[in-house]
Amino acid sequence: MGKPKISEEELEEEQKVGKKDQEILGQTAALAAAEARECADELFVPPLNFAMVDDGVFRSGFPDTSNFGFLKALKLRSIIYLCPEPYPEANEEFLKSNGIRLFQFGIDGCKEPFVNIPEDTILEALKVVLDVQNHPLLIHCKRGKHRTGCVVGCLRKLQRWCLTSVFDEYQHFAAAKARISDQRFMELFDISSLKHLSTSYTGLKKSSVA
Amino acid sequence: MGKPKISEEELEEEQKVGKKDQEILGQTAALAAAEARECADELFVPPLNFAMVDDGVFRSGFPDTSNFGFLKALKLRSIIYLCPEPYPEANEEFLKSNGIRLFQFGIDGCKEPFVNIPEDTILEALKVVLDVQNHPLLIHCKRGKHRTGCVVGCLRKLQRWCLTSVFDEYQHFAAAKARISDQRFMELFDISSLKHLSTSYTGLKKSSVA
Repeated sequence: MGKPKISEEELEEEQKVGKKDQEILGQTAALAAAEARECADELFVPPLNFAMVDDGVFRSGFPDTSNFGFLKALKLRSIIYLCPEPYPEANEEFLKSNGIRLFQFGIDGCKEPFVNIPEDTILEALKVVLDVQNHPLLIHCKRGKHRTGCVVGCLRKLQRWCLTSVFDEYQHFAAAKARISDQRFMELFDISSLKHLSTSYTGLKKSSVA
Repeated sequence: MGKPKISEEELEEEQKVGKKDQEILGQTAALAAAEARECADELFVPPLNFAMVDDGVFRSGFPDTSNFGFLKALKLRSIIYLCPEPYPEANEEFLKSNGIRLFQFGIDGCKEPFVNIPEDTILEALKVVLDVQNHPLLIHCKRGKHRTGCVVGCLRKLQRWCLTSVFDEYQHFAAAKARISDQRFMELFDISSLKHLSTSYTGLKKSSVA
């Protein structure tokens, strides 16, 4: 199979184009390298009140666009969102482009003494948390204090933490905003209907992300 | 192969013994079942200021005997202890009987304004934290606030967290005892000599426990 014949003019023209291509390639490589350097130096901005709860389970306040780089690095599969307000467009876009599933459980963010945390909703949220198919997963509300604190607190009860430790953890995040009503809710929350979901539990549940 | 002949008296005696064995066995089984029930209902008591830092890395205040059940469930391979005082005998016993390796880095728990955190010691402690062969691992000092907070804060810098988030996390644990000197230490801490140890880092370092 012989090469097709090329005239001298054509060859010259091709060499010119090749040189240009190389130049462009060189520029692109330089740009890519610069971008990689920048990316390597780029700082992560975890959302407010961010923490790891357990293998594959995280908690935080409301993430905004500045947190997307960090959330991307967590390789989230799902987000549990505990407010009734619709999810902002930018956040929805982020979820869409990263294949993250949103589970919304709209709990009103009432202020004491009118707090009324719906036990059924927390129960449903916990079922999502306990399903390792949904991991890695982020639980968040607005500030990552009360609604998120209650879900995590109930999870800790299921993990057989004594109440003192459940409250200690809750207070780390709620700080000056800690609510007696949340603590009472966690204390009285009945975990019996979830016990069958946590049979593989050993202290900190082991996730076996598929 | 015939059975050896047994006289009627011997048979009667054997049956009596058999009945007694069964009674004892029955009692043992009942005891074991009761113990299992008790064990299943037993609450875990995490140490003060306990939290998960990352896959296979935990932090806390000083664990006492009431925490041993919980620590056992974490299946720890190592403990980093950041105080100069000798480890209590009960804790040493616990480590021995559970095959947990102790890494002690004696840092004095000075009070402001005489705080002087030794950069070299924190660097050595971080090398132990970064070695996944040592995971699961617990970092603790006395209260899990200052010395532990500094080690975790430096780890976060290595994980490219912005300083605001590093301080936010530090303050969750130090609370009213947060120290400007600790925060300055974390800010100025030079992570460059450790960067080669965290190449597999993706946001939260992935542990590949052997």
